[in-house]
Amino acid sequence: MEKKPPLYPNARARKAEDPDRPVWLYGRHAVAAALQNPARRIERLVATRNAAIWLKERGVEAVADDLKPDAIDGMLPPGSVHQGLAAYAHPLPRHRLREVCQFSGEARQPVLVLDQITDPQNIGAIFRSAAAFGARAIITQERRMPALAGALTKAAAGAVETVPLVQVVNIARALEALKGLGYFCAGLAGESDDVLSQVPRDKPVALVLGAEGAGLRQLVAETCDMLVRIPISPAMESLNVSNATAISLYELGRDSSFLAD
Amino acid sequence: MEKKPPLYPNARARKAEDPDRPVWLYGRHAVAAALQNPARRIERLVATRNAAIWLKERGVEAVADDLKPDAIDGMLPPGSVHQGLAAYAHPLPRHRLREVCQFSGEARQPVLVLDQITDPQNIGAIFRSAAAFGARAIITQERRMPALAGALTKAAAGAVETVPLVQVVNIARALEALKGLGYFCAGLAGESDDVLSQVPRDKPVALVLGAEGAGLRQLVAETCDMLVRIPISPAMESLNVSNATAISLYELGRDSSFLAD
Repeated sequence: MEKKPPLYPNARARKAEDPDRPVWLYGRHAVAAALQNPARRIERLVATRNAAIWLKERGVEAVADDLKPDAIDGMLPPGSVHQGLAAYAHPLPRHRLREVCQFSGEARQPVLVLDQITDPQNIGAIFRSAAAFGARAIITQERRMPALAGALTKAAAGAVETVPLVQVVNIARALEALKGLGYFCAGLAGESDDVLSQVPRDKPVALVLGAEGAGLRQLVAETCDMLVRIPISPAMESLNVSNATAISLYELGRDSSFLAD
Repeated sequence: MEKKPPLYPNARARKAEDPDRPVWLYGRHAVAAALQNPARRIERLVATRNAAIWLKERGVEAVADDLKPDAIDGMLPPGSVHQGLAAYAHPLPRHRLREVCQFSGEARQPVLVLDQITDPQNIGAIFRSAAAFGARAIITQERRMPALAGALTKAAAGAVETVPLVQVVNIARALEALKGLGYFCAGLAGESDDVLSQVPRDKPVALVLGAEGAGLRQLVAETCDMLVRIPISPAMESLNVSNATAISLYELGRDSSFLAD
């Protein structure tokens, strides 16, 4: 069935398989961060000579198979921009909502909740912004989530190693749990009258993001404490979801202290 | 040389060729916007039955060749997410800096200047945010700019039809021209002490963005009136450039009236 093992598993193929089987990570920042993450078990590391030098210059010690770029091409899906570095690695240990979202005292780090967002590039970019703006965790629906691998981890530039991912069965129930922990649930919805800057800052915010086009599902929207929009020109229907997330994290961080941690 | 004409030209191949030869656009929003742009000459339109219905429901009149999805796959580069709609179209007419960046009175629309940004996905997402936040134009260096086609126009979701692109030979000279027109040139630079929110709002802003990693080139940075950073956690080196652009446009639009136009 597999033309050249180890196979790069796509999200669908992976469902029927062992969710803990290794996946390919590629891209310099993605692989360097994986090597620096003590929780990450790596089966095999391949690097071009230049990429190995780059790793060493960053102070990352690792034993890699020395390969030519096109040999690495042949291990990965067509078009993978691996920058000479790829790792066949075990998925990270799972996180539980209550463990990672619990907060105490003055900490106001937001949490991101992704409703039906499935594009790996967008999810990767969201991880990167989450790390940049100190988000506490990303929560997604287990059933729709692509593997943390390949183009997703490349776009995340290492952030999948530091921002915990919590996969839940039901997003609306996860929002109820977050409310119980003290979060204010703000959903992004283009049709809302209220705008992003009106989200109150006295509690940490769970920012709920839907897919472009479809938006939040009805039950998810109804479970939010408030729906807000980012003010944009009527010339465009919507923003790209990773851009909307970045703007929201910037706005929420504006008067908060969580970036200073 | 070409396996199946019409060839999808990549940026490098295109340089040696006629810059006005048609290119493939794909994706529903990208193609619908092209069909609605009177300045766009389309040679051929191909659509699946579902995509043709979608076009009609949006009120877009067009004559398309009715094809199966995999027949459209075969016309485009591998992995193109065409959503059943593709157009072989002539490039848009060129714009000149002075024509599109001239402003009068109270108008404060920003202009985006891209220094060495070459990733088609990022440039496409930047177009989309530019349209969403009412930017007046995007200025790039001619020599490094990929074709407005394929994945770039897909990510732009139609915005390449409405936001003028100005291609210049020299970015630093373009900044001098913008200053002459009354713009304040603010460059994003992660190492700056000043932050984005400090950019003055009494003039329209030319926001200058460099490539991730490399940042702005020295002469370009020196030509800016001010360098600013987006405050992020030390845990991440940088933001994705399209996310940084979206945040900057949001921040600049915050106290301005250009979105109300």
